[in-house]
Amino acid sequence: MKYKLTISYDGSGFSGFQYQKKERTIQGELENTISSMLGNNIRIQASGRTDSGVHAKGQVISFESETEIEADKLKYALNRMLPDDISVSDVEIVNREFHPRYSATSKEYHYICSYEDNVFNRRYITLIEDKLDINLMLEEAKALLGEHDFYSFSNRRKLEGSTVREIYDIDIIEEKEKIIFIFKGSGFLYKMIRIIVAYLIRVGSGKCKPGKTQEILLSRSREHTKHVAPPNGLYLFKVNY
Amino acid sequence: MKYKLTISYDGSGFSGFQYQKKERTIQGELENTISSMLGNNIRIQASGRTDSGVHAKGQVISFESETEIEADKLKYALNRMLPDDISVSDVEIVNREFHPRYSATSKEYHYICSYEDNVFNRRYITLIEDKLDINLMLEEAKALLGEHDFYSFSNRRKLEGSTVREIYDIDIIEEKEKIIFIFKGSGFLYKMIRIIVAYLIRVGSGKCKPGKTQEILLSRSREHTKHVAPPNGLYLFKVNY
Repeated sequence: MKYKLTISYDGSGFSGFQYQKKERTIQGELENTISSMLGNNIRIQASGRTDSGVHAKGQVISFESETEIEADKLKYALNRMLPDDISVSDVEIVNREFHPRYSATSKEYHYICSYEDNVFNRRYITLIEDKLDINLMLEEAKALLGEHDFYSFSNRRKLEGSTVREIYDIDIIEEKEKIIFIFKGSGFLYKMIRIIVAYLIRVGSGKCKPGKTQEILLSRSREHTKHVAPPNGLYLFKVNY
Repeated sequence: MKYKLTISYDGSGFSGFQYQKKERTIQGELENTISSMLGNNIRIQASGRTDSGVHAKGQVISFESETEIEADKLKYALNRMLPDDISVSDVEIVNREFHPRYSATSKEYHYICSYEDNVFNRRYITLIEDKLDINLMLEEAKALLGEHDFYSFSNRRKLEGSTVREIYDIDIIEEKEKIIFIFKGSGFLYKMIRIIVAYLIRVGSGKCKPGKTQEILLSRSREHTKHVAPPNGLYLFKVNY
């Protein structure tokens, strides 16, 4: 049986998604809990990794097990056994060809900033001190839409495959003291969203001249995109299939 | 010089307010930081203790020091040095007679419940599973207003002074999926608010017959008020002087 799980997690207490022997990771906690429940050594697949401190509201993982259990029962049992900072919102039984990463058609990420700092939101938002010009950022973001080589907006050190990706949509909304960046795309390179957000914030706050995005894309250089927004504002929001 | 500080803290990572040798406490962190800044052994006074897991948005503390420093500078320096889960929102220089507890004229506490459970709010709200009847709870809360012996709604084991307190106001508001209980009073006994909230929730969900509050107050017994709502929904919101 192949199980597909939609999960959310508060990334604050983890050294990222990917299993590490000596660190607390989301993959490690999930594999431990699922294995102890289903009684064999379960290895999970995910739609993608998230870095240390990055959150998820709709991460998708899958695993195979010979144990047959109803989707609802598995969800209920897992939510009772998993630590407080991981939660399962949906369980489906899927066919063997399903792969959370390769079957995905698009992904949505949110990046949440706030002008307001308080002790209760420090793990969940990125504080911004300068007033941002939303329209200017939206205008600049247009140059990122569509298929591009995002080399300049990613953190690849080695040449590991293509750096071409397609962004379907970027929206930036203001909600009270919060600014939320919404990205929809075919997939995203390592640190790509955090680099784009840092860049757009610099444009929106006047630290960086607008109108240069296309030039930066073509330059295939990180000269103008050195900054990376902190992980705590980032949420893997949804994976579509 | 006597300094009055208004502080907020996320209570999740502390074993309560009061100093304990081997545990991380709010008092311990504050005294360490202030002492290392002002160069002598500072002991602080507070408007009251909060239990492990209880939060504060407007706790008030004070301390004396021979070091003279401007209020704004002290606030800035403390916010740079304090851990991420404590923050100073206001600093005032006050006269020597000021005492955060004895000078207080009233206190306001909020208790936040939610019908929605997610990994991001578990430290900050109390999950409720049954639909609550707000009007029924408001009606029942009326019997608690004014001056009463709150023995039945507190956790005092020894006879340590009077259990008479005055509640000025109780409000219960619904905000999207949240229910917020607001208490204003002269002061509150140990666990008094969490016991009242647990009782009102039982009334509002139909688990407990309404109309018995006055009888329970007069009974001076915890027979009908055994439940204590969890600490994570409780916030010391404001202290008035």
